[in-house]
Amino acid sequence: MNTNIFQDELKSLLADRFSVTEAIRANYARGEDIFDPVLPLGIAFPETTEEVSKIVKICYENSIPIIPFGTGTSLEGHVLGNENGITISLERMNKILEVNNEDFDCRVEACVTRKQLNEHLKDQGLFFPIDPGADASIGGMTATSASGTMAVKYGTMKTMVIGLTVVLPNGDIVRTGTRTKKTSAGYNLTGLLIGSEGTLGVITEVHLRLAPIAESIMSAVCHYPDLESTVTTAQEIIQTGIPVARIELLNADQMEISIKYSKLENMEIKPTLFFEFHGSETSNKESIELVKEISNNNNGSAFKWAKTTEERNKIWKARHEVYYSVKSLHPNSRIYTTDVCVPISRLAECIMFAEREIKNYGLQAPIIGHVGDGNFHHTIVYNPNDKDDYKIIREFSNNLIQKTLELEGTITGEHGIGINKKEYLIKQHKDNLPVMRMIKKSLDPKNIMNPGKIFDLD
Amino acid sequence: MNTNIFQDELKSLLADRFSVTEAIRANYARGEDIFDPVLPLGIAFPETTEEVSKIVKICYENSIPIIPFGTGTSLEGHVLGNENGITISLERMNKILEVNNEDFDCRVEACVTRKQLNEHLKDQGLFFPIDPGADASIGGMTATSASGTMAVKYGTMKTMVIGLTVVLPNGDIVRTGTRTKKTSAGYNLTGLLIGSEGTLGVITEVHLRLAPIAESIMSAVCHYPDLESTVTTAQEIIQTGIPVARIELLNADQMEISIKYSKLENMEIKPTLFFEFHGSETSNKESIELVKEISNNNNGSAFKWAKTTEERNKIWKARHEVYYSVKSLHPNSRIYTTDVCVPISRLAECIMFAEREIKNYGLQAPIIGHVGDGNFHHTIVYNPNDKDDYKIIREFSNNLIQKTLELEGTITGEHGIGINKKEYLIKQHKDNLPVMRMIKKSLDPKNIMNPGKIFDLD
Repeated sequence: MNTNIFQDELKSLLADRFSVTEAIRANYARGEDIFDPVLPLGIAFPETTEEVSKIVKICYENSIPIIPFGTGTSLEGHVLGNENGITISLERMNKILEVNNEDFDCRVEACVTRKQLNEHLKDQGLFFPIDPGADASIGGMTATSASGTMAVKYGTMKTMVIGLTVVLPNGDIVRTGTRTKKTSAGYNLTGLLIGSEGTLGVITEVHLRLAPIAESIMSAVCHYPDLESTVTTAQEIIQTGIPVARIELLNADQMEISIKYSKLENMEIKPTLFFEFHGSETSNKESIELVKEISNNNNGSAFKWAKTTEERNKIWKARHEVYYSVKSLHPNSRIYTTDVCVPISRLAECIMFAEREIKNYGLQAPIIGHVGDGNFHHTIVYNPNDKDDYKIIREFSNNLIQKTLELEGTITGEHGIGINKKEYLIKQHKDNLPVMRMIKKSLDPKNIMNPGKIFDLD
Repeated sequence: MNTNIFQDELKSLLADRFSVTEAIRANYARGEDIFDPVLPLGIAFPETTEEVSKIVKICYENSIPIIPFGTGTSLEGHVLGNENGITISLERMNKILEVNNEDFDCRVEACVTRKQLNEHLKDQGLFFPIDPGADASIGGMTATSASGTMAVKYGTMKTMVIGLTVVLPNGDIVRTGTRTKKTSAGYNLTGLLIGSEGTLGVITEVHLRLAPIAESIMSAVCHYPDLESTVTTAQEIIQTGIPVARIELLNADQMEISIKYSKLENMEIKPTLFFEFHGSETSNKESIELVKEISNNNNGSAFKWAKTTEERNKIWKARHEVYYSVKSLHPNSRIYTTDVCVPISRLAECIMFAEREIKNYGLQAPIIGHVGDGNFHHTIVYNPNDKDDYKIIREFSNNLIQKTLELEGTITGEHGIGINKKEYLIKQHKDNLPVMRMIKKSLDPKNIMNPGKIFDLD
């Protein structure tokens, strides 16, 4: 590696869009994760796929590691800098390139965010339903196979991404996928790249499916006397096959925090489900009747309906702000998040196990859950200077992972592996790792694309 | 290669479950495709994944090509024998291993067929909704990323397969995926293997999602004055976002054949849509009202409703028998099938283009279509001994592929590439092929797994 040569080449390509200023490098040194920042050698700000290709070719020639960077909202260390590498911020690639509203699809540059896209779509009767807590970039959401509160109805990024433009580790540009609803044309490279966390290439454009906005959207909140009856309600609704668009759990601790942070009126500090129904007025009415019956049998409160669009937005804004609501309590702290996901029939057992462990360890760990998918998170604040704090949290996390695998679950429902879960991936997919490594080595023989993320090479 | 040594090893492993008898080899020499049979050196009939692993290890040591074989209903040459290789028939691996009806999933051996699975599930309130024309094996359907008449509601094998047991080219066994609804745990190997057509490994077990059987199922048939109004009806229904479970096109030629072959009473020799609605009684009623309105605007006939389950089954049996109905007209002929798929807004243009081309070439080419997905097939009978016949058909097919790609479509919606569409894959995904080859070479360095299918190595 000759640091000067490749930096000179990048400067001559990008001029002031390649920065080595320390303050800038510090801004792109980590995500919203638990790791200490690592400053890369420089930050590139390309504006086109062709520019990304040229940057990658320079790095490939000089064996310089590359970290692709979207909005930096990763929770697992995906975008942690590399002290011998550069970070490519895609923030200038934020254009919506086409919307095909007759076919319910669109094509966007990688750093278009989910909110930006939905703002753009709002008068077209269509929307993009994948909504992690953060206003993440579509490229980053693709790289981590993200989902959110509506996956129970609309699926995840695996469902919604139909094609990608990707710059490979050697700088070549490939366009995968098709605009059609289905295809059997060769290896599913789109599917392989979704969730590959920047280790196989830089995603520069994403082709997405969109969903029609339902004729009737109804949101409600319901409280329960205890956590178990809350989870059981969710479990029974899914097992009955009732079509809900959202079914989100907040435990009592989280409700207390969210009521204050998001100024939720008329809400109680009790385990709670947030519901949403998307359909026709008639079909929603039918679904709601069935849901109410199950909820009543589990001692749920009366449903508190959002009466206006503003009220509805307020509920879901509160849900999306959960991470920040917890973080606001301890501004200089870090947050450890868990992300296990189990088959729906095992959800109550898994959540109740976690709840007991939290008490045993004396942790403050509010719970939120995409319970329709069997997925839930703890949001655990800790002091990064207190090593014992971290040790206890990791021990709790290890136990939860162990239990999850016993229940035939997965170690990550939607956040990905990054650095934080590499050892957990080995526990879940030890036999798959040789295959993952073969693919990585064949596409990225110099190991320059986000090296050290997801798994280590031998 | 030492033919004797590896054959001796296979015999000592499998005894009479490894056959070199010519009559047996002839039975596994091709699928339902246009190719002349190629007899492999022998046929292995393993009973367990571990046995498959041992067979593959023997072949790997001796660099012997392997063709995995399910029900042999492939249309594109996927299972055509290799004269220097063996074929592994998975027909003895036909057990349903588990059904988790609380979580809507199941695990089956590769040669369980779709009908066998649905027969097994019928009293459990669940079903498996992917239904190609043939009673194909689940393993084969996974390998080709199959779909069928219900993809418009339930998706394709990409949607329904959540995990696989696969024997890699070196004989190692890997288990991919998870029972959960979503996961972000490392590379999506399940997704990569779906549609890899036996070129990356032998699929021995498949973990599937299932769907709850709808409370109300209603089927109807509707005739139209011409092909264009039929397709336009389908297009408008999809673009309005009305939830249909099936919407299938048969043109007048196909209706004439199917009415005779499948003894359909009260049906007319006109372009026709077969509909099915899955929902509650109320939601179906709503959907049907909307569909009828669109249909009437396009001069559709009165809906002919299936009044009993038997009548309903008869309609869909006729639809599934289409390939065999055409074949029955000319028992010693071969059938060339097309399989293009376009964005729904381009469907009428694509089908009408094809219709004009068929007339220009003077072909007999009945059309059927999964029109809700933008996917349609011609079923073209020809005499394999008449070279000119084939030349004309291929020319028609080439033109259709060209048009499809201009309309941003895909060369194969559901049948896969096999041998027949290799040159078309180059047209669609030239820039993807180097990546596909890298993956193939890294997982199968000796090129023993279904070599020469999907693409040629350099």
